[in-house]
Amino acid sequence: MRNIKGTLGSLGAVAAIAASCLMGVGTTAAHAEANSADPTDLVLTIAQGDNATSAAVQRAVTLTCDPEVGGDHPDPQGACSELDGVHGDFTALTGTSPQPICMMLWRPVVVTAEGVWQGRQVSYAHTYPNACMMQGASKHVFHF
Amino acid sequence: MRNIKGTLGSLGAVAAIAASCLMGVGTTAAHAEANSADPTDLVLTIAQGDNATSAAVQRAVTLTCDPEVGGDHPDPQGACSELDGVHGDFTALTGTSPQPICMMLWRPVVVTAEGVWQGRQVSYAHTYPNACMMQGASKHVFHF
Repeated sequence: MRNIKGTLGSLGAVAAIAASCLMGVGTTAAHAEANSADPTDLVLTIAQGDNATSAAVQRAVTLTCDPEVGGDHPDPQGACSELDGVHGDFTALTGTSPQPICMMLWRPVVVTAEGVWQGRQVSYAHTYPNACMMQGASKHVFHF
Repeated sequence: MRNIKGTLGSLGAVAAIAASCLMGVGTTAAHAEANSADPTDLVLTIAQGDNATSAAVQRAVTLTCDPEVGGDHPDPQGACSELDGVHGDFTALTGTSPQPICMMLWRPVVVTAEGVWQGRQVSYAHTYPNACMMQGASKHVFHF
């Protein structure tokens, strides 16, 4: 009897797993609808080098702007506001005003942004001749 | 006298800015060395569709494993441990055991991981036939 119960129990478990799989598809869709507020989650990096794929990453931070502002960026509110101002278009960041006075040293630094901006995949990289010029290129976003 | 002082003050300010730029390069490098613990910061996404670039992102979370475990992933400790076990190689995730029993529905789901694993740039995407099969492919990493 124990064996039959065990077998039935196993069958029940299999059925439950199968059911949960079917439900899984449904609940995932429901979950997605509940989270359809277009998340914004980014990883920003600063690397030494002139090529994003080969440069050595020195620093990296996470930045979340939606549904809540957060991440280990030192100024997530400032960074999110700055990105909001350019609708998440990293190429449109205007940087500091006035721009810092930088020496024309060739010690390239590459910044990257990967992740999601309001539900859209983001993949951005830009190389600056040196860290001073990179620091002038955004007010908050790449200041970490 | 005030004008001369003002002019000298301006020149001093310019010199200070120029010096801070030069120092900026140096301090950034020093900062990089102080942070050379090879950061791990990732954005993980789950999207409906079969192509990472065109699929609609439903959910996204951040995951930080180094220097500290964190992010808005619901189980960052579990996810980081799982990734540690495969040395950050998302293609080597073995998933749950036993694997869930899934219907062969074609409702594709694509998962992505972008960011940095121990200082190395990560760009991963994998498409599953449906959410049930996706859920069986990792223990913690893509469970959010």
